Amino acid sequence: MSAANKFTHLDENQQPHMVDVTEKDVTRRTATARAIVQLTPEIMAQFDGQELQSKKGPVFHTAILAGIQAAKKTSDLIPLCHPLPLTKCKVTIEPVDEVRVEVQATCTTDAKTGVEMEALTAASGAALTLYDMCKALSKAIVIEDVRLLEKTGGKSGDYKA
Amino acid sequence: MSAANKFTHLDENQQPHMVDVTEKDVTRRTATARAIVQLTPEIMAQFDGQELQSKKGPVFHTAILAGIQAAKKTSDLIPLCHPLPLTKCKVTIEPVDEVRVEVQATCTTDAKTGVEMEALTAASGAALTLYDMCKALSKAIVIEDVRLLEKTGGKSGDYKA
Amino acid sequence: MSAANKFTHLDENQQPHMVDVTEKDVTRRTATARAIVQLTPEIMAQFDGQELQSKKGPVFHTAILAGIQAAKKTSDLIPLCHPLPLTKCKVTIEPVDEVRVEVQATCTTDAKTGVEMEALTAASGAALTLYDMCKALSKAIVIEDVRLLEKTGGKSGDYKA
Amino acid sequence: MSAANKFTHLDENQQPHMVDVTEKDVTRRTATARAIVQLTPEIMAQFDGQELQSKKGPVFHTAILAGIQAAKKTSDLIPLCHPLPLTKCKVTIEPVDEVRVEVQATCTTDAKTGVEMEALTAASGAALTLYDMCKALSKAIVIEDVRLLEKTGGKSGDYKA
Amino acid sequence: MSAANKFTHLDENQQPHMVDVTEKDVTRRTATARAIVQLTPEIMAQFDGQELQSKKGPVFHTAILAGIQAAKKTSDLIPLCHPLPLTKCKVTIEPVDEVRVEVQATCTTDAKTGVEMEALTAASGAALTLYDMCKALSKAIVIEDVRLLEKTGGKSGDYKA
Amino acid sequence: MSAANKFTHLDENQQPHMVDVTEKDVTRRTATARAIVQLTPEIMAQFDGQELQSKKGPVFHTAILAGIQAAKKTSDLIPLCHPLPLTKCKVTIEPVDEVRVEVQATCTTDAKTGVEMEALTAASGAALTLYDMCKALSKAIVIEDVRLLEKTGGKSGDYKA
Repeated sequence: MSAANKFTHLDENQQPHMVDVTEKDVTRRTATARAIVQLTPEIMAQFDGQELQSKKGPVFHTAILAGIQAAKKTSDLIPLCHPLPLTKCKVTIEPVDEVRVEVQATCTTDAKTGVEMEALTAASGAALTLYDMCKALSKAIVIEDVRLLEKTGGKSGDYKA
Repeated sequence: MSAANKFTHLDENQQPHMVDVTEKDVTRRTATARAIVQLTPEIMAQFDGQELQSKKGPVFHTAILAGIQAAKKTSDLIPLCHPLPLTKCKVTIEPVDEVRVEVQATCTTDAKTGVEMEALTAASGAALTLYDMCKALSKAIVIEDVRLLEKTGGKSGDYKA
Repeated sequence: MSAANKFTHLDENQQPHMVDVTEKDVTRRTATARAIVQLTPEIMAQFDGQELQSKKGPVFHTAILAGIQAAKKTSDLIPLCHPLPLTKCKVTIEPVDEVRVEVQATCTTDAKTGVEMEALTAASGAALTLYDMCKALSKAIVIEDVRLLEKTGGKSGDYKA
Repeated sequence: MSAANKFTHLDENQQPHMVDVTEKDVTRRTATARAIVQLTPEIMAQFDGQELQSKKGPVFHTAILAGIQAAKKTSDLIPLCHPLPLTKCKVTIEPVDEVRVEVQATCTTDAKTGVEMEALTAASGAALTLYDMCKALSKAIVIEDVRLLEKTGGKSGDYKA
Repeated sequence: MSAANKFTHLDENQQPHMVDVTEKDVTRRTATARAIVQLTPEIMAQFDGQELQSKKGPVFHTAILAGIQAAKKTSDLIPLCHPLPLTKCKVTIEPVDEVRVEVQATCTTDAKTGVEMEALTAASGAALTLYDMCKALSKAIVIEDVRLLEKTGGKSGDYKA
Repeated sequence: MSAANKFTHLDENQQPHMVDVTEKDVTRRTATARAIVQLTPEIMAQFDGQELQSKKGPVFHTAILAGIQAAKKTSDLIPLCHPLPLTKCKVTIEPVDEVRVEVQATCTTDAKTGVEMEALTAASGAALTLYDMCKALSKAIVIEDVRLLEKTGGKSGDYKA
């Protein structure tokens, strides 16, 4: 394969195009992505103890829902993504240490192309919403590691980070 | 201020709500955010030398446009954000070292609340699109540092990371 | 089945998630919903007699089109709905008595999950648009009965109100 | 005023148009709408007692967020609505009796036209989402009374149901 | 002015950006655009005579509404357009000769930049919808002249085609 | 076939409806549409010679991406279009003579109905974006010929302009 066509989203004239997946088979595709969000000890303290349900609940629920909804908007946000009918989207948020939480997003579909971008977009959407929900407490929040953890299905085969 | 109302997006009953900014003044607001995207030496090599214009051009243009369009969709993506009429949105992508590029996004508006989320959403949207454009070359791309660099305007004052 | 998992949109940790329909079969699904809109005698009089075509026409057409378009936006409006490719959407508006009209919406798809929410969203979207078109004549319009009339297809079987 | 132009969304030729509000003043506008949702005793029981936080929380939060997001999409859903920059949107859900909850939505803006449709759309969006969250428990849920409770501001003056 | 910066949507590095209109004044802006749609005698015959109301009505109403809604989506469709709060959008469709109709769209706003793209997008959206409504009768329909007829307001002054 | 039902988007009562395609087969569908955009000699000169890459690149890339994204929004823009999962969308822009460029858009899907409107919407979206990118140089740009060039698949058979 020549270097020229390694960017699959560029055609033979170096113009952007949506990859033609017409001839590909419809198969089961899954992808899991994650985002690590570095909050602050002060914010994490809000999520602790007796008050956990009432405080963490709506903050995390809002971020989870934003992630799921972002996954459904992937082909609107990423210019060359194909529209895909998700059959599953699950977003979780768990504490990692005293200042960090991990957002994980898993998407599944039966389609001609994969759902990596859907999982990454869900994780990013949830992470950005966490930022928004907590930014009155600190503007120094950092989304510090957004990556694909795993994918299955499709011609390029399975992947595990 | 009690701990209870530090999450400004939760009301007195701990329910999510859009913050009431009705009584705030319309003032000039700016924000700049960035995302560092760790690509691979192979991908960076595609952007080098004589072929730079033809290859980097459409890849970077697509990401820049996706960032600008994401900024305009911020209030649709982040559930509790107010719709704001952006008067400026500029997204740039520059190499940082042999494997990293930096996306910077600056937004401006005259409004009752700030544009931090717009700048962060623009940077994230451009970074995700870079991932999409380059993912055929490597699935190990990482968006590794999304943060607010600076904001001006508004009651909470200026901020510089 | 325990009470805990009766809310199918909550996972085992009581967090909101999109139900995983991956393993379900693609089958023919239909749903019909209705909304009763209580207008006023004055508004109903506008729809009568010789002028009926010219007046009722554009008011009803606008509401019908809004209902069809709302059906297509269902997965964007209802956070945990799956995106579904509608193959039919029909919205009708008929007078019920001197002050009421009935909106009926029928949706059909071949998919892994049902179209109840699409039919309900179409009926609501048309009813809200009727409100908007008539609100200069009366602000006391009431959308007074939005319900599912019938569904067919899917594991949970057929339903008739 | 002749009957012919009482439908403000129809022009002099009976064609649908967006009302021209160019010459109107920008003033403070508020509107509150409500929707009564008739659930079932079984569903209401899920919201009671010790489990209230964990169960009702995410169900109600999801509906509240859907209502707020629906309010922001009003001009996309209602064909002839003007786009308005909301400065406040608050949605609450409270039990009314053993089988009913009431959704209330209040919107505020400084604009040339009112926010009645935004409040009604928020209430309807939250009610539809409640339906979606609870429909595995009963398909006989009814959204039984969607109406404007109050508005202030604008040339047509204040209104209270 | 150098040739280099004549494309106002390209910055000094030839990268696409949203023009910075922050320092411009909010003034009244209007624009009128048109699209000529060449139908066929057979289609035009459907619009004639006694049946005109019932046939032309819903076809034209649908196209008019699509045009108004397209105008509201302009900043979503045209990547570098600013979001603008339209205060008026009027779309008309009139026969020109035996095979042609003219769509005219007029938009108004008080904003820092003009509404030419909103008017052109409204005219195009209505014309495309006419095509869709009539395409079962002929696939040879042509949208043959989409142009700006007039604009007022803004630093670049008035324009009349 | 009676004249009354020639407008397939009108039902037996002359009301607009989405055509019921439920019983149709899923088959391969393609469509190619074009738009001719008449620019000016001054604008065309900007695209010539040594500077072609840097100037034409981002202008054309922006228009191409806008066209692809518009294709994905077709069912949102055209009220009675069915949502279709595109598997290919390719937009090209080529000079025709000293003052004209031709936009061509080709869409493909496996679905129950065709993609003519997707191809026409892509061509129109790219053409409108070219207008936007060049309008500072001339407001007299005309989109002068938007038409379907070819379609394949579906019950109505192939078509070639």
